[in-house]
Amino acid sequence: MLIDTILRGEVGPAARLMRDLDDEMPQARETLRQLYPHTGRAHVIGITGSPGAGKSCLTNQMISHFRKRGQTVGVVAIDPSSPFSGGAILGDRVRMQPHTTDAGVFVRSLATRGHMGGLSRSTGDVVDVMDAMGKDVVIVETVGVGQDELEIIRLAHTTIVVQVPGLGDEIQSIKAGILEIASIFVVNKADLPGADMVVRDLTAMLQIRATRARELVPQIVKTEATKGKGLDELMVAIERDRAHLQSGDGWTEKQQQRLELRFLDYLRTQLFEQARARLPSIEKYGEIVTALAAREIDPYTAARRAVAGILGTAKVA
Amino acid sequence: MLIDTILRGEVGPAARLMRDLDDEMPQARETLRQLYPHTGRAHVIGITGSPGAGKSCLTNQMISHFRKRGQTVGVVAIDPSSPFSGGAILGDRVRMQPHTTDAGVFVRSLATRGHMGGLSRSTGDVVDVMDAMGKDVVIVETVGVGQDELEIIRLAHTTIVVQVPGLGDEIQSIKAGILEIASIFVVNKADLPGADMVVRDLTAMLQIRATRARELVPQIVKTEATKGKGLDELMVAIERDRAHLQSGDGWTEKQQQRLELRFLDYLRTQLFEQARARLPSIEKYGEIVTALAAREIDPYTAARRAVAGILGTAKVA
Repeated sequence: MLIDTILRGEVGPAARLMRDLDDEMPQARETLRQLYPHTGRAHVIGITGSPGAGKSCLTNQMISHFRKRGQTVGVVAIDPSSPFSGGAILGDRVRMQPHTTDAGVFVRSLATRGHMGGLSRSTGDVVDVMDAMGKDVVIVETVGVGQDELEIIRLAHTTIVVQVPGLGDEIQSIKAGILEIASIFVVNKADLPGADMVVRDLTAMLQIRATRARELVPQIVKTEATKGKGLDELMVAIERDRAHLQSGDGWTEKQQQRLELRFLDYLRTQLFEQARARLPSIEKYGEIVTALAAREIDPYTAARRAVAGILGTAKVA
Repeated sequence: MLIDTILRGEVGPAARLMRDLDDEMPQARETLRQLYPHTGRAHVIGITGSPGAGKSCLTNQMISHFRKRGQTVGVVAIDPSSPFSGGAILGDRVRMQPHTTDAGVFVRSLATRGHMGGLSRSTGDVVDVMDAMGKDVVIVETVGVGQDELEIIRLAHTTIVVQVPGLGDEIQSIKAGILEIASIFVVNKADLPGADMVVRDLTAMLQIRATRARELVPQIVKTEATKGKGLDELMVAIERDRAHLQSGDGWTEKQQQRLELRFLDYLRTQLFEQARARLPSIEKYGEIVTALAAREIDPYTAARRAVAGILGTAKVA
């Protein structure tokens, strides 16, 4: 059975399922539905930061550490410049080679896929499949820029924001939304001048940021990823975050939040697709189109009338 | 009357209306609805290209040329690095000063507004208000990157794609969708080495690209915007595009396309907002949420059931 091969972690069937989900194949959706009761166990870790901050190198080092502990790892790369996505920065691609022959590591790149609008949906699906495959940890690597990437990062239990000294006014450039959900700040390339200033600025910023009740104060870790320095500390911070989440309601809350986000994302898409298909059949649609074309009404008002027609609500002016 | 002051082109009331539209004030929507019959006359010109390609400098020169002909101009700047948005590249801000005291020029920056998802809606509203104000030309300046910006460019009658030599494999970096809707290619900084190669590459590319019936073959114009060189040729190309559009069905088709895009954009948003609000009242919603939380169903299936409940369609499995 297909389900069983994926639950056993076989790469071929899993990769095919991911592709079929992307192609919107109905039977792929049915397979994911059957896999769903087996999901929810993986620790999903988001890692974000500017291109060149060393995210991929850090990810690579984290993979090694997780593997040494006997944990299996899935990686979803969204950053087009990531070596995981075929890009090559600072020779990371060479260093990543060891993992490509390791059956305990499964890497999937979504960097070159369609437009951003669908990325959070695809990412959620890929994370689910890796989760069902039994991966203990799923790392989602993304550049912290757009709104969609913020949505992607919301899929994670633990969010790592990578900063480097010397890239100018670095802390200012993180999206406010990402700052608010960061669990761990990594100051990478900590041997560069200015690293301590970045740590100081982050600390000051965290004092301003309100920490919700029962929430861990975000941790700050200095690393030199290319030399593996600070990785033990980072692994402790990750483990500490996971333990804290699982000791209280945090883990369950994050899972529910993630389910709700994905549910609403699908709702928006499906609703629009179905509504668009039935537009011609709604009462007075011809009148709306004619009035719109004649500029007697504006697109906003036309949309209000169409929505009322689709949802069967009382007529609006 | 507010309507009249805007139709007369008064800046204060127009700027307030734009802000109120952004804030989703119901009376602002009503005002725009009343203005709508007075829109559809402005020539909307989209200008896109990489940061540093000289879009703002070109825009600035175009403004001067339109003003010399007695035409009024509105500018909507989406590019955060644009001097129109408060950024300063190559000292353009200084050169732009003359226009800031010219009542025939109205500049609005949307660069720092909310998330990208809403940008195409806001841009459409701002273009409509400028159109109602009687601006003869509305220039929309944007960097050619994301999907949302592609939507924004679709609002234009005439689309100018700015290229510069020496930025590497430049032509490859334009989004395919933007290439397909370009009316004019500007090769700016034409004094730099490689300019002729860019022209040659564009010419070759345009021979491959299928030109639709009744469509002008996209024009290629070399400029040195900082010195004003090539601007006369660019103005001729813009005028030629406008005349061609208005001589056939092109103008009307573009207007209808733009209306449809905006209508569907509003439809998606309003549908989702209203559907979300009525989720709790749909039959068996409690069951869906419970099954989702228990991972008995996946978010995709849950969304299908909710959509069926909202749209009142036959139950799905």
